[in-house]
Amino acid sequence: MTRRLYDLAAADERVRFSPYCWRVKLALAHKNLAYETVAWRFTDKDVIAFSGQGKVPVLVDGKNVIADSQAIADYLETAYPNEASLFGDPPARALTLFIKAWAEEVLHPAIARIVLPDIFKKLHEKDKAYFRESREAAWGMKVEDFYIKRPDYLAAFEAALKPLRRVLAGQDFLAGAAPNYADHIVFAALQWARMMADVKLFEEDDRIVGWMHAVLATYGL
Amino acid sequence: MTRRLYDLAAADERVRFSPYCWRVKLALAHKNLAYETVAWRFTDKDVIAFSGQGKVPVLVDGKNVIADSQAIADYLETAYPNEASLFGDPPARALTLFIKAWAEEVLHPAIARIVLPDIFKKLHEKDKAYFRESREAAWGMKVEDFYIKRPDYLAAFEAALKPLRRVLAGQDFLAGAAPNYADHIVFAALQWARMMADVKLFEEDDRIVGWMHAVLATYGL
Repeated sequence: MTRRLYDLAAADERVRFSPYCWRVKLALAHKNLAYETVAWRFTDKDVIAFSGQGKVPVLVDGKNVIADSQAIADYLETAYPNEASLFGDPPARALTLFIKAWAEEVLHPAIARIVLPDIFKKLHEKDKAYFRESREAAWGMKVEDFYIKRPDYLAAFEAALKPLRRVLAGQDFLAGAAPNYADHIVFAALQWARMMADVKLFEEDDRIVGWMHAVLATYGL
Repeated sequence: MTRRLYDLAAADERVRFSPYCWRVKLALAHKNLAYETVAWRFTDKDVIAFSGQGKVPVLVDGKNVIADSQAIADYLETAYPNEASLFGDPPARALTLFIKAWAEEVLHPAIARIVLPDIFKKLHEKDKAYFRESREAAWGMKVEDFYIKRPDYLAAFEAALKPLRRVLAGQDFLAGAAPNYADHIVFAALQWARMMADVKLFEEDDRIVGWMHAVLATYGL
């Protein structure tokens, strides 16, 4: 059985930068499941039309086709119950959804304002018009204008990290002694940030970088 | 055996407003433990000198004296293992500490900027000089000056609530089907806000108010 993940790529197809796809890659690693990836660009809508929608991640697992990172995580948890749990007991899954909400309401926008013009430069040519049009409509700003307030955005990003820094000062992972899907969610956002930002976001001895390395090392990545 | 909680009070001793004390009161209710409270003011340092420090909450449980809300929660979890767990399994406790960090780094400061001058007005006369001096030193602002930017602070408070609103749109409690200590932490902050703010923070049909009522109702409060 082939397990296949459609994974957002930049012009360089080795640059896989979607935070939602990173969540799934870590969740698959957590479940000890082998998979192959297909480099996918924003405008390859026809390639994933079989999934009934137009965004990645899309996971094809045997006969099952699942889109949306949370749906995929829930699918993996149910389909592979004998592997390590992604969430822990039911209260832990519910609490993870708070961390997801924080990541998407606070961390993602703080990162997007920084990396958006850098992503634009790194995209495949065929994606650039789509990206410019959709992002400029969503933000009400031109792609190039995101550079103007970058110092403010970097300060706001650092401020957004405060709860993460406080909790990582006292424990190894968000989930405690070992990472779980809560760590995957926050790792994925910061991996997107570090891969795509043309500006240095962290010193190499930063606690957050240490935690990111530890997440990867847990899965032999 | 008498179980006794030293609980911060305003001039009106029925007004018990400390978010840290509210966490403990809900945790005690969650563990189904009876207790009495002692109204305590900021300057009653001698009254709790036996605890070895100068802040509430202080819980006296038989021979045990515990200060600090998290230490009290952990004590209750260990001392009363047969009652409902405050946290759930170990990943859930670790995730709760993220919500605690978010509450203390984001929500508490957002609330404090709004309620600080309103609290000052409601304090016992003997506490006012202490409160003014300590808060003005901490914030670098006069108590009365917090009124100047109140519209900005109210907007920032609403923005800070975004992750909470998103997650409560999809589930009954932060911990899922029933509240646990994660709910207690966030409830406590908002209870402090609602008790002390002279400005209306929520409409009565707000989802957050509904959730707060549901937390209290769970414990028959």
